[in-house]
Amino acid sequence: MLSKKPIVTFLDELASSAPAPGGGSAAALLAAIGAALVSMVGSLTVGKAKYADVQEDIQRILDHSEALRHKCIDLLESDVSAYTQVTKAYKMPRETEEQKGARSAAIQEALKYATAVPMDLAETCVEILKLCPECAEKGNVRAVSDVGVGALAAEAALRAAALNVLINLGSIKDEGFCRREHARLESLLSGKAQLKEEILKDVEARL
Amino acid sequence: MLSKKPIVTFLDELASSAPAPGGGSAAALLAAIGAALVSMVGSLTVGKAKYADVQEDIQRILDHSEALRHKCIDLLESDVSAYTQVTKAYKMPRETEEQKGARSAAIQEALKYATAVPMDLAETCVEILKLCPECAEKGNVRAVSDVGVGALAAEAALRAAALNVLINLGSIKDEGFCRREHARLESLLSGKAQLKEEILKDVEARL
Repeated sequence: MLSKKPIVTFLDELASSAPAPGGGSAAALLAAIGAALVSMVGSLTVGKAKYADVQEDIQRILDHSEALRHKCIDLLESDVSAYTQVTKAYKMPRETEEQKGARSAAIQEALKYATAVPMDLAETCVEILKLCPECAEKGNVRAVSDVGVGALAAEAALRAAALNVLINLGSIKDEGFCRREHARLESLLSGKAQLKEEILKDVEARL
Repeated sequence: MLSKKPIVTFLDELASSAPAPGGGSAAALLAAIGAALVSMVGSLTVGKAKYADVQEDIQRILDHSEALRHKCIDLLESDVSAYTQVTKAYKMPRETEEQKGARSAAIQEALKYATAVPMDLAETCVEILKLCPECAEKGNVRAVSDVGVGALAAEAALRAAALNVLINLGSIKDEGFCRREHARLESLLSGKAQLKEEILKDVEARL
């Protein structure tokens, strides 16, 4: 499993010409870092007398960010298997007409799955971002800059996931599917750069 | 060493209330991912007949991105030692006037070092970003989306590093130092969000 590898090894493999990990796993890792930073601020706030008033809110944020962090790690692994399926489909025989048809269908199916993984990641990134304003407002003020770093990581991951969706949609022939996924992506991206800037403004005001 | 830890362990520790790793190491990891993705595109381009014309340019980019990636990993480790020095200084005795003076001087010195680490990271992020336009233009078109993910990671890391500089400057009493570092930071940040958007536009045009 990719996520069990040492950081330096993951980075060495990412930097190499090896087929995996690729930009999809990198995007999932960016998102996981974002979720982990929200969790960190939660962890530094729960149980502190000074923040007794917001205990329940912070615990709810922490539970959510931890679930999202684990989802990002799952998606980091899924990205590799999605990529493997696409590569496998492209390597299918294409001598007879029947083989050509089967290969093309397998490629299209694999590409749809390879689109679903970054789309799922994009949705997860939006959820991470949405936790940030309350976390920046109520979390331990000594760690408030970490919410800002978390929001930066989550928003970069959202846009990275969008690139990974787009690159797959370019090879999918099902026009209805492409239209729906484009619309879904647009709605996920909409307003999120601005949300990130608002979070950073709140963070800088509390620095 | 932090960078030798498995990804999941690093993320578990990041999400916890443990003093390290913190937002500084997270920012360095974001930047390392950015540099690694530029390297990946370079690695997927060098030695390919189709890209023989740009061989030298790509090799130069690859050498540079690899050096920057290793610098980011060094800074990931430095961030922990900088944080440790600050914590240690704050724990110095402060019973006598002499002790108070020594403690205050040690804190100020440690904070200046804790500012130098993210400032160095911010400079490194700018260098990573500057490699992206040529890499997106000349690199293997099949990996062009990865340049985009790299630029997103590097720009998020730049802004994250800036937050980490700012949080330390807030406790530094040397006004001349603060003024100089604020100006330096501003010049590093200037125009980089736009540069990232331009890189993404180029990437999307080649998708």
